[in-house]
Amino acid sequence: VILSSSLRIVLVSPRNPLNIGAAARAASNFGFHHLRVVNPYDVAFREAVSAAGGAPVLQSAAIFSSVAEATADCELVVGTTAVGNRELRHPLHRLEAGGRMLRAHAGAGLTALLFGSEKFGLSNDDVSHCHWLMRIPTSERTPSMNLGQAVAVCLYELIRDPAAETPRPDTIKPVTGRDAEQLTQMLMDVLQQSGYTNRIIATSTERKVRRFIRRLRMRATDAPLLLGILRQVLWKFQAAQEKPHSLNR
Amino acid sequence: VILSSSLRIVLVSPRNPLNIGAAARAASNFGFHHLRVVNPYDVAFREAVSAAGGAPVLQSAAIFSSVAEATADCELVVGTTAVGNRELRHPLHRLEAGGRMLRAHAGAGLTALLFGSEKFGLSNDDVSHCHWLMRIPTSERTPSMNLGQAVAVCLYELIRDPAAETPRPDTIKPVTGRDAEQLTQMLMDVLQQSGYTNRIIATSTERKVRRFIRRLRMRATDAPLLLGILRQVLWKFQAAQEKPHSLNR
Repeated sequence: VILSSSLRIVLVSPRNPLNIGAAARAASNFGFHHLRVVNPYDVAFREAVSAAGGAPVLQSAAIFSSVAEATADCELVVGTTAVGNRELRHPLHRLEAGGRMLRAHAGAGLTALLFGSEKFGLSNDDVSHCHWLMRIPTSERTPSMNLGQAVAVCLYELIRDPAAETPRPDTIKPVTGRDAEQLTQMLMDVLQQSGYTNRIIATSTERKVRRFIRRLRMRATDAPLLLGILRQVLWKFQAAQEKPHSLNR
Repeated sequence: VILSSSLRIVLVSPRNPLNIGAAARAASNFGFHHLRVVNPYDVAFREAVSAAGGAPVLQSAAIFSSVAEATADCELVVGTTAVGNRELRHPLHRLEAGGRMLRAHAGAGLTALLFGSEKFGLSNDDVSHCHWLMRIPTSERTPSMNLGQAVAVCLYELIRDPAAETPRPDTIKPVTGRDAEQLTQMLMDVLQQSGYTNRIIATSTERKVRRFIRRLRMRATDAPLLLGILRQVLWKFQAAQEKPHSLNR
């Protein structure tokens, strides 16, 4: 993913050290390396740096005193927002669409992705530095996300692989016809010896059992397990028949 | 999204109250309502319930003492995992594919989505209750995600709208040809009166200026702004000409 080298994750005025740490960890999780922090509470930032998790990303994070400075070398500046809290004068794209636009821009220069403070989000002033805005499609009732979670969701969308949507063909080896038939016969033996079935209706029962075994779509590696169980049951029947009166009555 | 009513988010042995709260908040953000918690530290859970954010989801959360009980009424049980930490005997799907499978199952019965504890993830015992496993495509270097962030990313994938990938046609009204031409003429006046251009090369300059104005892809609502600026500049030129020696020299 070429975006991982050209994207600058910019936290604007974050207040909670846990969130700064969480943003750094999400960056590490999804292979992004460049974190910028605008005007953090000094104490908050130091606490976050000293905490574990996402440490390399955090320790190489760059501090700026304004959004203008933090985005000075970026050709594209995109802000994130929970819609509805201000009149937007900027083009607004849902994350699914915005993510695609960001990926399309990768390699054309540095891109800044701005996240506002936990409490107020990006200010109108911060937003005026952006070319367009992106929103995570949260519910109208609870639109505002936790900062660390918002960063994680946005970065996931950026590394998401649409091709991975097609499930890989199942690599599980199914049971062979021979094994299925052996299971069918052994289960028939068990049914007969247990008195479940009798010779008169045996043929229709056998067809039912055969279909049942095939419906299970058993794995090849599971056939020995079930064969072993059935064999043991048959052995127990045999043993009981040899001492018919030891336990009965 | 029909999954929002049939999905049960199951946190297995969570230890950190902040993470329980974060999971509940992510559920609220993405419109899911049903949280189940297996065997939480009592103290941790009470702390999380008393904290703000995602409160309704958290307060209606159900507590269970085992994975078996928490998934008893579910037809499909899916576990989440950071791969590599155990030999997997279960089918494993990347989140993009697994999300599609979960959506396809929506409406066919309750579905449980299991998240393991912060430190150890799901145990082999927990996993044995699952039909299949899902993994978030994190980097190999830092595969393990924060619990609250993992829940947020998974739920986002479930409510993600692939159709939203096509950016909506821009609703911004572009400047009309008439306005563009008025801007061109007024800018030409400014250039001429400022001495930038002269009558000899005026025609080629006009073509350049005309192309330049069109390249800007200005919005209709921005035309009056620029026209006002140019008008003011022309007025200043006029005023200066009327008192030519007041400030110069």
